[in-house]
Amino acid sequence: MPQGTQPDARRYCPLPSPFKMKRGGELRDARVAYETWGTLNAARDNAVLVLTGLSPSAHMAANAEDPSDGWWEGMAGPGKAIDTDHWFVICVNSLGSDKGSTCPASVDPATGEPYRLSFPDLSLEDVANAAHVVVQSLGVERLACLIGCSMGGMAALGYMLLHPGSVRAHVSVDTAPQAQPFAIAIRSLQREAIRLDPRWDEGRYDIHAGADDVGYPDMGMAIARKLGVITYRSAMEWNGRFARIRLDPEKREDEPFGFEFEVESYLEAHARRFVRSFDPNCYLYLSRASDWFDIAEYGGGSITGGLGRICIERALVIGVSTDILFPLAQQEQIADGLRVAGAQVDFVALDSPQGHDAFLVDIKNYSRAIGGFLATL
Amino acid sequence: MPQGTQPDARRYCPLPSPFKMKRGGELRDARVAYETWGTLNAARDNAVLVLTGLSPSAHMAANAEDPSDGWWEGMAGPGKAIDTDHWFVICVNSLGSDKGSTCPASVDPATGEPYRLSFPDLSLEDVANAAHVVVQSLGVERLACLIGCSMGGMAALGYMLLHPGSVRAHVSVDTAPQAQPFAIAIRSLQREAIRLDPRWDEGRYDIHAGADDVGYPDMGMAIARKLGVITYRSAMEWNGRFARIRLDPEKREDEPFGFEFEVESYLEAHARRFVRSFDPNCYLYLSRASDWFDIAEYGGGSITGGLGRICIERALVIGVSTDILFPLAQQEQIADGLRVAGAQVDFVALDSPQGHDAFLVDIKNYSRAIGGFLATL
Repeated sequence: MPQGTQPDARRYCPLPSPFKMKRGGELRDARVAYETWGTLNAARDNAVLVLTGLSPSAHMAANAEDPSDGWWEGMAGPGKAIDTDHWFVICVNSLGSDKGSTCPASVDPATGEPYRLSFPDLSLEDVANAAHVVVQSLGVERLACLIGCSMGGMAALGYMLLHPGSVRAHVSVDTAPQAQPFAIAIRSLQREAIRLDPRWDEGRYDIHAGADDVGYPDMGMAIARKLGVITYRSAMEWNGRFARIRLDPEKREDEPFGFEFEVESYLEAHARRFVRSFDPNCYLYLSRASDWFDIAEYGGGSITGGLGRICIERALVIGVSTDILFPLAQQEQIADGLRVAGAQVDFVALDSPQGHDAFLVDIKNYSRAIGGFLATL
Repeated sequence: MPQGTQPDARRYCPLPSPFKMKRGGELRDARVAYETWGTLNAARDNAVLVLTGLSPSAHMAANAEDPSDGWWEGMAGPGKAIDTDHWFVICVNSLGSDKGSTCPASVDPATGEPYRLSFPDLSLEDVANAAHVVVQSLGVERLACLIGCSMGGMAALGYMLLHPGSVRAHVSVDTAPQAQPFAIAIRSLQREAIRLDPRWDEGRYDIHAGADDVGYPDMGMAIARKLGVITYRSAMEWNGRFARIRLDPEKREDEPFGFEFEVESYLEAHARRFVRSFDPNCYLYLSRASDWFDIAEYGGGSITGGLGRICIERALVIGVSTDILFPLAQQEQIADGLRVAGAQVDFVALDSPQGHDAFLVDIKNYSRAIGGFLATL
């Protein structure tokens, strides 16, 4: 977390105490971190909320307090697709994430110790409810648009279902109405890699481990992250990008079965950046919350039934044919379900080669779709 | 390995000593395990060789000495697609695999100790050359057909290229002319999971560990196997097969983040069967050999150029649209390249839902294609 003189644009919204969780359990004195861009107009009808994927912070784009690039810098800002000259944009750090919101790495006020695995079961509905508290605290009764990306797209469906009338339009980005078994298998294996790391120690690792401290599940987190990156991108992209290019000999590890191909080095670089920058217990909680999410729970076992309970005016549903984690057919389910529910729905299927991460990379095509949609609201 | 009274149909073919390996290094007193079905005819022109994927043994199908089901039981046998009433069928255990052939778990005659990581670099060309020795030892100068599945399909390309005139027809099953970066990334991560397991200990684990012995990299092998199974099957199949079905509560693990969905239990069962039945160092060697394989090395950097040096009369190239590890486009490359090289090529693209493993599961469609092709030879 930024400290001292590091720029920090986060604000904090306290949650009602106790804050009741979907699967039982509750949090006391909890809070959610968020950032904003632009200005809420007098009618309070120009607010846009963005719910993020598993790992990003609330710093979606540069702002006055923190001019560093955000995770969706190309998408949001003055004159950009999510035009902060026009919209009052809020980005929330998910409840359970360690980027400022209350999470398993936070201190439990009842004990003075970090929650670790005593954190209550976390669902994406809890993430949604916490975000809704933030929006209300800002004086917004009804969002002009709710944008949800990846995991945040599932949370967004929960938000709209649990808070009828709170959203006018919705943008659904590279997400799903429920976790399917392939995605569950991938995430389960990521969690298992962390759980099997002896240094995870049932969640009792050193939360504040420095770069040289060993009491931290680096191994499990590295495997989890690499598996994530493999499923976030696409084979097609990598054929063009890496092919069979070898590493320069001096960059190779001098150890048995060490890395030899550029694609291996690429994964390693991703893992190194991530391992110590995201709390492992938070990762486990958010990952499992994604597996649990199923809009069909609200529709008597039917996805269409669950989506049918969402009452909004318009939606843009966007996905990409190269996504193996949230396949395009799942975006079609969302589009079809929201249409049946009475919304006017635009469905955009892109062929971006970057797979699930296309929304973070193919800014040109995603900007055109999202910017075009927002301009008509 | 089967011992004592367990049925065992394996025979052993000694390799020339020393047996020179492609990347330098050599083996002394090495051997290859194989099994056969049917009878070589007087003209010695009815021999079919099968090269396997990474993990199977030479026991492809039941035979007199070992009536247990083989790994391709539905495909090979009297009256089946690979008709052992007509063909003399040989299946070879890959050099480097621990199912009877010389491998990193074998004793190095120079030291009296297992090779472990002192085993020389293994390539699929070495696997092919060792198989060629077996075929010659059986008095077969020219195979009627060489069938290669998955990793064995790559080895088969090497076989035909390195031994001109030794093969009349070829069946290429769910394979590739070179390893692409997505497959390399998956296999690299599998190897990394094993290497990071402290009990791998740079290859010095207890090779003969019993079920209760702990000095064995169970964790790394389990992660590697699960990741394998995830990439061997397909999301489509799992949507139909597992959906979001939960485990019975009594089958759930009573531990944090334990398994909850049937797909997780399925992966666990696969891992349990595999972890102690395949030697981890052998896995590392064969996995890396797959990454190294590139027919373009023989064609001045061109796949077509490499395939162009293969001189056979006919080929059947078969693959499946749901395969993410060896995508259909790679089978098309093989078909196109062999055609350019002058072979008459049949290309069959199936829509079996089972992904890469379809050749082991969708016996009906694979039988029709392979049996139909063999019947015309």
